[in-house]
Amino acid sequence: MTQTDSPTDEIRVAVSTVIFSLRRERAGEPARVVLPLVRRTRDPHEGQWALPGGWLNATENLEPAASRTLAETTGLVPSFLEQLYAFGDTGRSPARTISIVYWALVREDTTLATELENVAWFDAVTLPQLAFDHNDIVDYALWRVRNKVGYSRIAHGLLPELFTLAELREVYEALLGRTLDPANFRRQVENSETLIPTEDFRTGPHRPARLYRYDQDVELADRGPLPHSSLALR
Amino acid sequence: MTQTDSPTDEIRVAVSTVIFSLRRERAGEPARVVLPLVRRTRDPHEGQWALPGGWLNATENLEPAASRTLAETTGLVPSFLEQLYAFGDTGRSPARTISIVYWALVREDTTLATELENVAWFDAVTLPQLAFDHNDIVDYALWRVRNKVGYSRIAHGLLPELFTLAELREVYEALLGRTLDPANFRRQVENSETLIPTEDFRTGPHRPARLYRYDQDVELADRGPLPHSSLALR
Repeated sequence: MTQTDSPTDEIRVAVSTVIFSLRRERAGEPARVVLPLVRRTRDPHEGQWALPGGWLNATENLEPAASRTLAETTGLVPSFLEQLYAFGDTGRSPARTISIVYWALVREDTTLATELENVAWFDAVTLPQLAFDHNDIVDYALWRVRNKVGYSRIAHGLLPELFTLAELREVYEALLGRTLDPANFRRQVENSETLIPTEDFRTGPHRPARLYRYDQDVELADRGPLPHSSLALR
Repeated sequence: MTQTDSPTDEIRVAVSTVIFSLRRERAGEPARVVLPLVRRTRDPHEGQWALPGGWLNATENLEPAASRTLAETTGLVPSFLEQLYAFGDTGRSPARTISIVYWALVREDTTLATELENVAWFDAVTLPQLAFDHNDIVDYALWRVRNKVGYSRIAHGLLPELFTLAELREVYEALLGRTLDPANFRRQVENSETLIPTEDFRTGPHRPARLYRYDQDVELADRGPLPHSSLALR
């Protein structure tokens, strides 16, 4: 957009997605934050794990490109997707590559496409050395989600339509990486006026717990400046 | 970063910056949010006003490119600069262009480089039709700054080192576009524990007002994932 110079052909544009979900070893255990990674089968960084992604097509908008490359590499369809950051340091790849990174959420117990090889879930806080600057990107995405969970209803992206306050608290605890006092949590959530209590209850071995849903009138999160953003919360 | 396709040469990468400042017609009047625009001297959109920016060089990191193109087109050096968003819709420019947009602040009474033609300050909320999607970009930047001023000390980017609570409130009022109750504002700011009172006072026609400074230990704002970010608050 400068008026005097020409653009360079030497810069390539890719999209990648950090997509978080929750996993627990067995029912009743604390959930961990996990994300899918794809093993690289060619250089650079052959054999290392990397974020799902791919090159941007010239005729493709950014958010659809993030969804497409995510689906192609993992089979996942996120419940929430927004732009994280454009990473463009000159040293991050042998060929100059701008990666426009999205972050996304997918609900617990979503499975990867079984026909795909070289893709697996990893614990977000104990990652191996990833390709390129992808460790930094995951760290930043974790930082963003931990900040954002405090002032938006993004936890919804990890929950079913109806959930108990204990289930909501577990999502917060997994994202924040620490335990929360149940009574304080209940008070804060009730004060936030973002939840609507239903007349349904979760029954089981414990005493019945009321089910809640999110108030759809409350903004989910900043999903970017584009009003026609295609991936609203499902 | 896909492993099977090749990147396209048809995508160009530009950087642009939305840089806000405050202006008032005369002392004592409310401040308005203004930003500098550059008049285009060639197609597309010849004669229309556009955000300061330019093409990214292949050997240049993103943030330095934002600073460079801002300086080349306006002569301005911001007190604060962070990435806003990557705009990449296919229809936003005749040639496919990804614009990585930064937003910045510069203190009141900063002047544009006098030798530059085709650059001028505009009121941020009453803009003419700009080139490309730049109206949308400015609207999004305003939305971001209004949100962010509530939970970060970005107002500092528009203030001198020492300032009165009334001066701080005026910055908030200008950014938010509404007046704030002085007593409530004072209480909220004091509760936030981000300001340090000094023993200095602003004297003049009114009664002396204590001068404050920001606590430098409090994080300014999310300046992105890069720890070596070059443009800390000056």
